[in-house]
Amino acid sequence: MISYPLDELAGALLYFKCENLQLSGSFKIRGAANAVFSLSEAEAARGVVTHSSGNHGAALALAAQMRGMRAWVVMPRNAPQVKIRAVEAYGADISFCEPTLAAREAAAAELLRSTGGTLVHPYDDDRVIAGQGTAALEFLEEIPDLDIICAPVSGGGLLSGTAIAAKSLRPEIVVIGCEPANADDASRSFASGQLEPGSEKFTIADGLRANLSPRTFAILRERVDRIMLVTEQEIVESMRLITEHLRSTVEPSGAVAASPALHRQIEGDELRIGIILSGGNLDPDKIPGQ
Amino acid sequence: MISYPLDELAGALLYFKCENLQLSGSFKIRGAANAVFSLSEAEAARGVVTHSSGNHGAALALAAQMRGMRAWVVMPRNAPQVKIRAVEAYGADISFCEPTLAAREAAAAELLRSTGGTLVHPYDDDRVIAGQGTAALEFLEEIPDLDIICAPVSGGGLLSGTAIAAKSLRPEIVVIGCEPANADDASRSFASGQLEPGSEKFTIADGLRANLSPRTFAILRERVDRIMLVTEQEIVESMRLITEHLRSTVEPSGAVAASPALHRQIEGDELRIGIILSGGNLDPDKIPGQ
Repeated sequence: MISYPLDELAGALLYFKCENLQLSGSFKIRGAANAVFSLSEAEAARGVVTHSSGNHGAALALAAQMRGMRAWVVMPRNAPQVKIRAVEAYGADISFCEPTLAAREAAAAELLRSTGGTLVHPYDDDRVIAGQGTAALEFLEEIPDLDIICAPVSGGGLLSGTAIAAKSLRPEIVVIGCEPANADDASRSFASGQLEPGSEKFTIADGLRANLSPRTFAILRERVDRIMLVTEQEIVESMRLITEHLRSTVEPSGAVAASPALHRQIEGDELRIGIILSGGNLDPDKIPGQ
Repeated sequence: MISYPLDELAGALLYFKCENLQLSGSFKIRGAANAVFSLSEAEAARGVVTHSSGNHGAALALAAQMRGMRAWVVMPRNAPQVKIRAVEAYGADISFCEPTLAAREAAAAELLRSTGGTLVHPYDDDRVIAGQGTAALEFLEEIPDLDIICAPVSGGGLLSGTAIAAKSLRPEIVVIGCEPANADDASRSFASGQLEPGSEKFTIADGLRANLSPRTFAILRERVDRIMLVTEQEIVESMRLITEHLRSTVEPSGAVAASPALHRQIEGDELRIGIILSGGNLDPDKIPGQ
């Protein structure tokens, strides 16, 4: 999608890849489907397990349903209702846990033991990263001369896949990871050159609260040009601009990659900026700023 | 657009014509462009005038800008800010008036006298009605076997054009006009067989506060099968369902045609229902239900 008023606001030509309109409501179906359909018949018979703040869980549930397999999803108790409903609607079994990474991983480990299923990690998995990269692949097939591509960064799966696909197709493209300032581990890790621990602050971008893994950090260091931070206020403003001008619903995490361009933090003459709107699973009861 | 969860909710196959994604943010550009590009050079040189709660004004302003003409738009003082901004952005001159049909018409008459321009009425105009009908034309080209087509009704321009186009292409199609219960003049006029005065109640569907004209009433009586009423609560619920499942932003008026199907008020086995989501110019400060 494009929008002339947003181009004017940004002082650039913006192209939006609307993963909020994707099956399952986010890009996550790309990686989940690639992982699920990579399993052997024997593995498929035992099902898949994951832990997710929501979008990956829903996507894995849908991918498993498409292959006729079982899926178990560990979700934090504070996950948005809309994401919980989606996982349920796709027929997965949900185990709730405390909203910490340690609690999620422990619950998933227990499920793996009891089911014999395969873990499909939300981002620390080459099959998932390869799947996520297809968004950038399609984007550059459609708009081959993008100067910049912006994707959100959390665990780094989408950004890793984006960077691999984009730099392979167009080595001169600038790849920017966009991260909430309140969940800035990727930014700090880039600055220090080593994997830094997660932030303890709160961000409304509930899909971007995970931290890089050694695998994704290694890919990002090699292929991503820059990490840009986005404030909570900028996330809300970006959502409102997208609602008003693209008439499209994005969740807070889904607006993060649009924020630097919409706030004129990316400078340059007549730049063609590709922005991945990563998801649209907005809890209708939690539209911010109302 | 389609959505499996919404199909399940409705017990039917729903197809959405997303006029909220149309140029100017609503179907109104269809009629406005048809009218503006029908003018002679001499008429075009004097410009166009209209009165509008917003979407027609913005559309006419854009159509005039596309032809390089002037446009004057009379708007009620209580028009949504987002619609006022849009008319301004397309370069039209705005005259504000009291929010009554009489005040609008008087202000427009004065502008016509002073400018020598041409009135492009929001709906009481054959060129406008013909343009609005192209939404149904495209819809049936894409989904030729629709059983039912639902469009909102206010002044009746869109519904007239929809009925003419749809019944011409597919005589057996059922055409349903959807109207806020709080602005039910079309429903009452259908029941009594004569043009009834407008309601004095308030509806959040700010684009549906106009009344039928003798011209549109005559077309509707001949070609529309049924008028269905929609409560304020149903409008808000429909907006939320569209936001959640289509990830698409509609204004209150834009959700009205979806409401009967989403609330299971249209019965029948495996019906294919086409729904015109008429506009997306939602004031981000006025998202209801928050």
